[in-house]
Amino acid sequence: MLQSAKRIVLASRPYGVPTKENFREETLELAGLAEGEVLVESLYVSVDPYMRGRMNDTKSYVPPYAIDDAIAGGVIARVIESRAQALTAGDIVLAGYGWQTHAIVKATHVQKIEQGNVPLSAFLGAVGMTGLTAYFGLLSLGKPKAGETVVVSGAAGAVGSIVGQIANIVGARVVGVAGSDAKCQWLREIGFDEAVNYKHANFREQLALATPNGVDVYFDNVGGDVSDAVLRRINHGARIPVCGQIATYNETAPVYQTPIQGLLLINSATMTGFIVSDFRDQFAKGISELSSWVESGQIQYEETIVQGFENTVEAFLMLFQGGNTGKLLVKVKE
Amino acid sequence: MLQSAKRIVLASRPYGVPTKENFREETLELAGLAEGEVLVESLYVSVDPYMRGRMNDTKSYVPPYAIDDAIAGGVIARVIESRAQALTAGDIVLAGYGWQTHAIVKATHVQKIEQGNVPLSAFLGAVGMTGLTAYFGLLSLGKPKAGETVVVSGAAGAVGSIVGQIANIVGARVVGVAGSDAKCQWLREIGFDEAVNYKHANFREQLALATPNGVDVYFDNVGGDVSDAVLRRINHGARIPVCGQIATYNETAPVYQTPIQGLLLINSATMTGFIVSDFRDQFAKGISELSSWVESGQIQYEETIVQGFENTVEAFLMLFQGGNTGKLLVKVKE
Repeated sequence: MLQSAKRIVLASRPYGVPTKENFREETLELAGLAEGEVLVESLYVSVDPYMRGRMNDTKSYVPPYAIDDAIAGGVIARVIESRAQALTAGDIVLAGYGWQTHAIVKATHVQKIEQGNVPLSAFLGAVGMTGLTAYFGLLSLGKPKAGETVVVSGAAGAVGSIVGQIANIVGARVVGVAGSDAKCQWLREIGFDEAVNYKHANFREQLALATPNGVDVYFDNVGGDVSDAVLRRINHGARIPVCGQIATYNETAPVYQTPIQGLLLINSATMTGFIVSDFRDQFAKGISELSSWVESGQIQYEETIVQGFENTVEAFLMLFQGGNTGKLLVKVKE
Repeated sequence: MLQSAKRIVLASRPYGVPTKENFREETLELAGLAEGEVLVESLYVSVDPYMRGRMNDTKSYVPPYAIDDAIAGGVIARVIESRAQALTAGDIVLAGYGWQTHAIVKATHVQKIEQGNVPLSAFLGAVGMTGLTAYFGLLSLGKPKAGETVVVSGAAGAVGSIVGQIANIVGARVVGVAGSDAKCQWLREIGFDEAVNYKHANFREQLALATPNGVDVYFDNVGGDVSDAVLRRINHGARIPVCGQIATYNETAPVYQTPIQGLLLINSATMTGFIVSDFRDQFAKGISELSSWVESGQIQYEETIVQGFENTVEAFLMLFQGGNTGKLLVKVKE
């Protein structure tokens, strides 16, 4: 059989904030299956901040996207046809081929999903890479103890909102930083002790009021001025997992004025960059624990689902407008 | 009995590089001993870069020095008179009262020195706080493995030269960064695999040649441009103990342009500030191991001994002129 697929490729490298013109939709015909391969149709595709980094031609977590190549990323897909023993038509899998409606992939390159009572879309979010990022960054690097103060930036984002809820589960005082009063309101509803809007003129004073005992763990999703404010309140022995720096991804010149080394030095503090794949050998444990927290309602999540593959680029651009709450993904097919 | 003592106090807070005018010598009369106290005479007093930080009226490791108060710091002293059971006249002790010729101290506030075959001055250096700083910063935070590349800045300094030799003992490739060709030459003589002079115009290229496999551990004593160059060469999973930032201590405005969080993020690297007292509960082990390395000649050290208490301030100011090799201390009495 021959299957026609649509995919989105990088047409040119963005300079600063990406625009539609940096992308191009293409149609391709998928050839027949080789032994060990499956044909899948995408149900949900993920759009994530880290993708912006891969659009630059510079060293990052992973190699940059090539011009004229597809935007790789997480996908929930259904097997249509299989020439692999481990999978049969109808199976749901997690794949990494990205912004594409159909694909032929090796069965060994996808992971079969055992859905349980967890909504399918959650496997791209709260119990997928997003949740695992929050889980390992907070617990393995941040190491919060009951009664300590945990501050999360980008707190209403996909990772940040889960970080705060896990910190809550371990008994820490959790303060979120977000970019609107509505987001702050939502954070309090899902269990954050305090939430502070960084767009308020007196943000630094509000942050100080919300962290009367200083900051023991700062889970940094954003960098820039928000991080400057939080880092100046860290306690002796503070831990700072650095998960993202979205405030700076679109910067074309360095803007840092924070004396990072000096602040770490006077506080005997530790700052650690990470990517979720650093913890690959512990994923099973993380997925299991996150699933149980989602099922029990201890972890709530919001997701913004954009309908239709043709709106994928638009969905991605939303990430840089601060418009979404929670995990952003695109529904391709029922 | 009444003992007259000279001491040096902070007359005014330095702005930028300290000058003689920031200090004042005073004479005071020491009253009699209370139960549990000893009268000591200083043999060696220590002058250290960290003292500059304490001269600012800002939060640091430890409280700032008060105006008109003595400059506290490490001292090797001899007991002259004792009203404490643990000590008798003639005992040698390590104390912390600083730039002062004589002092009355509680016996519980000093540590008796078991000299062995180690020169007395080494207890303010290679087997004292300096050596312990190198030992714990490198081994507990840097965690170098055999075959990895360790870069040390301020490598010809008191801490840096010991860091490099310990890294050598554990089998790492050691590259030192220092400020003169003579210092670099000395570093190669004491076992550094490479040494690079940061004052050369092509410093960054030389650093790249000296670290063909990147940098796994960066022991940072200096900050500023040298650190910028090294941090841009770190490998995945690099560890960066931050021990000092002398390049910036005299800066009156922030100069950082290095995207620290971004570099940690893309390399899953860890940067940790520390002060030797964080490891206080393991000092005995560190002193014992350092002593044996000094006795066996595996750790060599240089020291610059300035003669005479009246030259203490001048000795301190030498730290900011890059003139000394190794630990700088003042000999007060034979």
